[in-house]
Amino acid sequence: MPVFHAHLPKGRFSRERKIAIGNALNQSLVQGLGIPAGDRFIVLSEHGDDELFIDPTFMDMTRTAEAMIITIILGAHRPPEDRHTLMKTVTKLLLEMADVSPDDVFIAMIPAPNENFSFGRGVAQLSSIAPKW
Amino acid sequence: MPVFHAHLPKGRFSRERKIAIGNALNQSLVQGLGIPAGDRFIVLSEHGDDELFIDPTFMDMTRTAEAMIITIILGAHRPPEDRHTLMKTVTKLLLEMADVSPDDVFIAMIPAPNENFSFGRGVAQLSSIAPKW
Amino acid sequence: MPVFHAHLPKGRFSRERKIAIGNALNQSLVQGLGIPAGDRFIVLSEHGDDELFIDPTFMDMTRTAEAMIITIILGAHRPPEDRHTLMKTVTKLLLEMADVSPDDVFIAMIPAPNENFSFGRGVAQLSSIAPKW
Repeated sequence: MPVFHAHLPKGRFSRERKIAIGNALNQSLVQGLGIPAGDRFIVLSEHGDDELFIDPTFMDMTRTAEAMIITIILGAHRPPEDRHTLMKTVTKLLLEMADVSPDDVFIAMIPAPNENFSFGRGVAQLSSIAPKW
Repeated sequence: MPVFHAHLPKGRFSRERKIAIGNALNQSLVQGLGIPAGDRFIVLSEHGDDELFIDPTFMDMTRTAEAMIITIILGAHRPPEDRHTLMKTVTKLLLEMADVSPDDVFIAMIPAPNENFSFGRGVAQLSSIAPKW
Repeated sequence: MPVFHAHLPKGRFSRERKIAIGNALNQSLVQGLGIPAGDRFIVLSEHGDDELFIDPTFMDMTRTAEAMIITIILGAHRPPEDRHTLMKTVTKLLLEMADVSPDDVFIAMIPAPNENFSFGRGVAQLSSIAPKW
């Protein structure tokens, strides 16, 4: 139920690599947080060089023309440990599965309570059970 | 003032249906929460099949190639009842007005306090009045 | 580390103006909140007239065909004064630097704790220091 949106520089990633990015983000939930693999709700979008502005060195990184911004809407119940684990796993798997440099991965996590999610049919499926995803 | 962003699979929705989706989202505020019809701030975007990854069956849904992810930035003061009503109304009106299957509607709501919104001119118009929208 | 996403009407803004919008958003952090200029993480996207629905007059504005929706993911520690200053500065600089009418600037700010951001390498660089950005 974490929802990913990765903003990519246009024309830099092949179809194969975009699919690999989707798989890496999905696997970060599975491997990092023990979430079922079926929980896959991921958006990518491409932006021209007049539409994506990422500083090349801020916070002592060495970013390339492949640098991306990833937002993750995440259950608000997740403690800091889970959030740090997810960041680390996202970055690790993007490198291993899609050849994305760790310096190129900017992440912003947005907290939302579990009852704010509907998996379909207009129902908040997670509102009545203990937080898990 | 809730802000919608619907992420659609590319090439699946005609211009007419995209406009109907916009109208359904707007009407969900009017009919579900009594918000004025003029409060219309809605974004749609299309994503190729290497850019939108939605599991076809997770949480016992039967999703089609039209499945979409909708985010809603919503006043943080809204109680669970309002949020559930909005989910239900969005899904119902997308079916009635734009022929979208209820199983194809994934929703994530992001809470933000009313004073975080500006309708224009750099002013937080709702910061000094009781929460309403 | 505030992250901007400006949703623009398609074909209305030249490359030069899009770059000016990026610069104005970056400068709003520098001039409004004293954030370093290197803290630049900005996304723009364009949406057709069947993909962007903004009411022309709601809340007594006079919006044009250039009206846009800007979301800002912002450190949750920011007090109301900072948020109001940022709104005001964004709107002022969009006018001065990119000729965008103040009535055309809708802003929604999403709060997220500083430890939810990674500038790269999978590390939450701001989790162990006092909130600043």
